Amino acid sequence: MRFGVNHTPSVGWFHSWLDFSASDTARDMEQIASLGADHVRIFPLWPVVQPNRTLIRQRALADVATVVDIAGSFGLDVNVDALQGHLSSFDFLPSWLESWHRRNLFTDPDVVASTAAYVEALATAVGDRPNLLGVSIGNEVNQFAHAPHPAPHDITAEQGHAWAAAMVAAARRGLSGGSTVGSSAGREAPPASASSAPAAPGSRPAPLVTVAQYDAAWYDDTQPFGPAHAADHGDATVTHSWVFNGSAALHGALGAGSVRHGEYLLQLAAAWNREPGRPNWLQEVGAPTNVVDPADAAAFTDRTIRHVAGAQDLLGVTWWCSHDVARSLADFPELEYDLGLFTNDGRLKPAGEAFAALARTGLPAPAAPPTTAVVLDDVLPDGSPRYGVRADCAPGGRFAAAWLACAESATDGRGPQVVLRSRLPDTAHTAARGIRSTVEVPDDLAGTALSIAHPATMP
Amino acid sequence: MRFGVNHTPSVGWFHSWLDFSASDTARDMEQIASLGADHVRIFPLWPVVQPNRTLIRQRALADVATVVDIAGSFGLDVNVDALQGHLSSFDFLPSWLESWHRRNLFTDPDVVASTAAYVEALATAVGDRPNLLGVSIGNEVNQFAHAPHPAPHDITAEQGHAWAAAMVAAARRGLSGGSTVGSSAGREAPPASASSAPAAPGSRPAPLVTVAQYDAAWYDDTQPFGPAHAADHGDATVTHSWVFNGSAALHGALGAGSVRHGEYLLQLAAAWNREPGRPNWLQEVGAPTNVVDPADAAAFTDRTIRHVAGAQDLLGVTWWCSHDVARSLADFPELEYDLGLFTNDGRLKPAGEAFAALARTGLPAPAAPPTTAVVLDDVLPDGSPRYGVRADCAPGGRFAAAWLACAESATDGRGPQVVLRSRLPDTAHTAARGIRSTVEVPDDLAGTALSIAHPATMP
Repeated sequence: MRFGVNHTPSVGWFHSWLDFSASDTARDMEQIASLGADHVRIFPLWPVVQPNRTLIRQRALADVATVVDIAGSFGLDVNVDALQGHLSSFDFLPSWLESWHRRNLFTDPDVVASTAAYVEALATAVGDRPNLLGVSIGNEVNQFAHAPHPAPHDITAEQGHAWAAAMVAAARRGLSGGSTVGSSAGREAPPASASSAPAAPGSRPAPLVTVAQYDAAWYDDTQPFGPAHAADHGDATVTHSWVFNGSAALHGALGAGSVRHGEYLLQLAAAWNREPGRPNWLQEVGAPTNVVDPADAAAFTDRTIRHVAGAQDLLGVTWWCSHDVARSLADFPELEYDLGLFTNDGRLKPAGEAFAALARTGLPAPAAPPTTAVVLDDVLPDGSPRYGVRADCAPGGRFAAAWLACAESATDGRGPQVVLRSRLPDTAHTAARGIRSTVEVPDDLAGTALSIAHPATMP
Repeated sequence: MRFGVNHTPSVGWFHSWLDFSASDTARDMEQIASLGADHVRIFPLWPVVQPNRTLIRQRALADVATVVDIAGSFGLDVNVDALQGHLSSFDFLPSWLESWHRRNLFTDPDVVASTAAYVEALATAVGDRPNLLGVSIGNEVNQFAHAPHPAPHDITAEQGHAWAAAMVAAARRGLSGGSTVGSSAGREAPPASASSAPAAPGSRPAPLVTVAQYDAAWYDDTQPFGPAHAADHGDATVTHSWVFNGSAALHGALGAGSVRHGEYLLQLAAAWNREPGRPNWLQEVGAPTNVVDPADAAAFTDRTIRHVAGAQDLLGVTWWCSHDVARSLADFPELEYDLGLFTNDGRLKPAGEAFAALARTGLPAPAAPPTTAVVLDDVLPDGSPRYGVRADCAPGGRFAAAWLACAESATDGRGPQVVLRSRLPDTAHTAARGIRSTVEVPDDLAGTALSIAHPATMP
């Protein structure tokens, strides 16, 4: 299990890319390494790297590579996210996508080709680094695909698949050396998955390519990027857990539905994976102060991570985040100023102590998966897809309630797996996943999904 | 008469602020100085300098000051525009004004205060430079204030006045040394106008503060920023002349209505000035290839500038622009690739030769103003403001046609002045302006204003 931290630069937040400082970066990385973390996730700002559609700044790519190297000097692996895109309530789209130049981010051919060129160039710039954990296409890019974004680039699910496939292919081309030596544009290079291509002894695992989404993918039936986009693209299925989505309101900050929310998302992810054994990555989880009292942050952190560690096929967990946002920076939602494991000036916070303690003592890595699976009604009796399945999964939904009840009654404390109704007949699938018994959601279980708060909503 | 050039960096366009290069800047400035220009106008990108509302990057300010110094080393004075804002069809608003953080650019108190802080900081950073010509609040910021902008920050004319006054006050505070030594926020410091405060012998003139607008201010009655905003704020009245606004379509590229368009705007500006003698600055004028054949660019440039030189109280003319946009950069409207006096790789173009020839030979600077003025009906018979006055002034409008006919019939080749109907009774005003006779727009003169093409319209 990989155990890491999302890096929020302590000086200048992500605007620090405009004033790149190796020494500021090194200080942050040294602090993160002191926690016992094994990796960081980092976030270049898209408009800074690609300010014109056909201008990808080599200096910016070099700065990203330097951060990877600095992290490596402290023993940290690095995941690089390409399309930011969105961070902590702020959107960063380049001017060639805004106002007079607005075109659909996901479907305009010129935009998609140029976005892919950026993803490929970024992957190329870091592809040879021995401590590269992987490349994510971007941070929660699905936020731009639908309401409640104030100016969504609406698309269909199929268009979302085409876009994700194009971006993953671009990242793979970059990781295999870039277009000049890789496959031709538009064709997907062979997967470089850590799981599908075990590394030779002494060599590093192949870097992962992943697609990161916010939880509307799992909980909102109207969001065009859904579970299949998470499960079908890249080398691992990525989840982001934020209990301001209704979980904490419903269950309390330290209630089971909150401290098991990350675990639950991992089980949902596994249910939608077509291949048993595909790794699942809880790439973001944090203790937001709008629903988690700072006095509870350490307990929330400890319990959340312990529950997560019980999930099978766990690639890892990456805490959000390393450092509090400086109070000198304006307009962040209040909670963003207090998500760090360190204060902005580098003092370890209680949640950071909890994280470090878990890193020191290690976490149990159960050899066998949970043997029970709750059945998720993804199809109607006639086999057609059932609209509303995601609402059932959302906090307060029928399925979420059933999974949680089952998890809380488990004698080993591990939450159950999830199996799709549509895959129940595939006994090879269920057997490969170690599922020995199934639980049906009781017919009489009432549930009402809470509306999912958008993480970017202004304070 | 000041004679200068708007600097469009040859390498990386304005994105070059992200990779500031003193040597690239020096090469551009040396070429501009070789034309005989006496000044340049430069354009920092707002989101690069102020990426967070409370983060004004000192390094970015230092880069701007360095450009001023480099220009000075070639004998060039510099006007610095603060809020870009908008350039060549691209908008650059910081993320703290977009999507989840969208607030009215002109009226939100936090936004206005922080925007003023940027304007002040920029003015402070360059205020002590001996070759500082002035500070403009921003490039055509009025584009954001109304349709056809795709996402306008709609305001009233009064709100526009309050905003302009706040920005001018901020610039003046900066030029007088910044808040720590200047006047308190919200109070306007004494004007530092070059015209109102003649420099002592040997000392430099005080830097100008100006407000720059695109020509909807003069031609579109629905645009909240109008002639009064141009005439009432700062130290000079600024006009931008772009004949793709209908002038060239109506009159032909080399027709009188095109090559006199800059002159005409200067006369309109003078009409709205409350103080006779207030300087007028044709801060942008160029030969756009969508309506001016490249073969006509040199003639257009020569004739435009010669006509402009006939206007009274002329502060100067600043040609758009120094260098063609590189074809390697995508998505510019076609005309933007060919507006330079130099090609992108530094070869002098025919328009540049025409500019340089005028700089070498000098232009006549008539001692007396034109003595005839065409009367512009700004008020109804009852004295109330007349809606539609701006449409009358637009290309193809009744007033524009009358002014042009009068200009073409003048024996000395100089276009007439313009006087507002509302100011005719003020004989001290007309006398101070040297107006000896007036011309009424004939009742039977038909005119239909063309719709004004927005400069940012996509190709």
